[in-house]
Amino acid sequence: MAMAEREAGPRPGGRSARVQASVHRAARDLLARMDRAAVTIPLIAAEAGVTPSTIYRRWGELNELLADVAVERLRPDMVPVETGSGRGDLLAWAEQYAEEMSSGIGREMIRDVLAAEGETGPRRCCSYARQQIAVIAERAAARGEAFPDIDTVLDRVIAPILFRILFDEALATERVGGLVENAFTAA
Amino acid sequence: MAMAEREAGPRPGGRSARVQASVHRAARDLLARMDRAAVTIPLIAAEAGVTPSTIYRRWGELNELLADVAVERLRPDMVPVETGSGRGDLLAWAEQYAEEMSSGIGREMIRDVLAAEGETGPRRCCSYARQQIAVIAERAAARGEAFPDIDTVLDRVIAPILFRILFDEALATERVGGLVENAFTAA
Repeated sequence: MAMAEREAGPRPGGRSARVQASVHRAARDLLARMDRAAVTIPLIAAEAGVTPSTIYRRWGELNELLADVAVERLRPDMVPVETGSGRGDLLAWAEQYAEEMSSGIGREMIRDVLAAEGETGPRRCCSYARQQIAVIAERAAARGEAFPDIDTVLDRVIAPILFRILFDEALATERVGGLVENAFTAA
Repeated sequence: MAMAEREAGPRPGGRSARVQASVHRAARDLLARMDRAAVTIPLIAAEAGVTPSTIYRRWGELNELLADVAVERLRPDMVPVETGSGRGDLLAWAEQYAEEMSSGIGREMIRDVLAAEGETGPRRCCSYARQQIAVIAERAAARGEAFPDIDTVLDRVIAPILFRILFDEALATERVGGLVENAFTAA
């Protein structure tokens, strides 16, 4: 499955990367202090110290920019916690994932990611989850433990967590253990 | 889990119901013949023969109206096919569901449902799936067959189908059988 097609992004440290960083920061700051519906491109531009046309040229429209900001925030910033077993690692990681995604800010990020045109944003989110699960799977393999394949974990653990958040009530954290058990029946 | 809170809708046959039906029909016709991004409330109003303010008063904004139209289209219009066993019925229904949802129009409907404010639309979609699975489960029970509970079917069959459509590549129809098998391990 194609992953992270646009992951490369602008050259780090270049002008383009600096503009992107300041626009992202401005958008995050505004989202933190005002209602989502009140945030506009001219406001973000003023906060970032760039012209609105810089933003229009690069992102086209607000939905695209907010999706980009949300995807960046969903990029994992830590290695999954080590608990001593693959099952324990997956459980700890999935419980934290379920809690973060079902929080107000998590729901807003998922919504922003899905609101943009195209599939790049959603696929990057999926690839972030894959990467984290792969880290856990590799540690399990190094200990000689059986571990389900990544697609099984996506279908049996990640999919129900996101499905319930989007279409029903978020799962109670206690139910995540049952999902992990079900993934391990395929290990 | 709360279901179908707003299901009641306007009194059938009343003026309000007629307006709703003609606005929905107008929106569907326009969506069928022009690009999604070109559809506006004034266009829908002209097509439906109502004033734009009628639509603004009732739906507030375009996203809400299109979500409403999408939810209506997702309402099941047939009883799940009978194959002689609960497992066969669930497989046939889930394969059709996966195909419909991953089609261009299916993706657009899911997207429209998720783009509106609030949780009513997505929950109605979830309750439609529940209703269909319940019909299959009741037939299975009447034949004395074991059948997984509805939440298990949602987590193990519906969730991965929608997750893959939204965040990854749609599942090949052949993979739906594996999801149904996994749901039956809990029967």
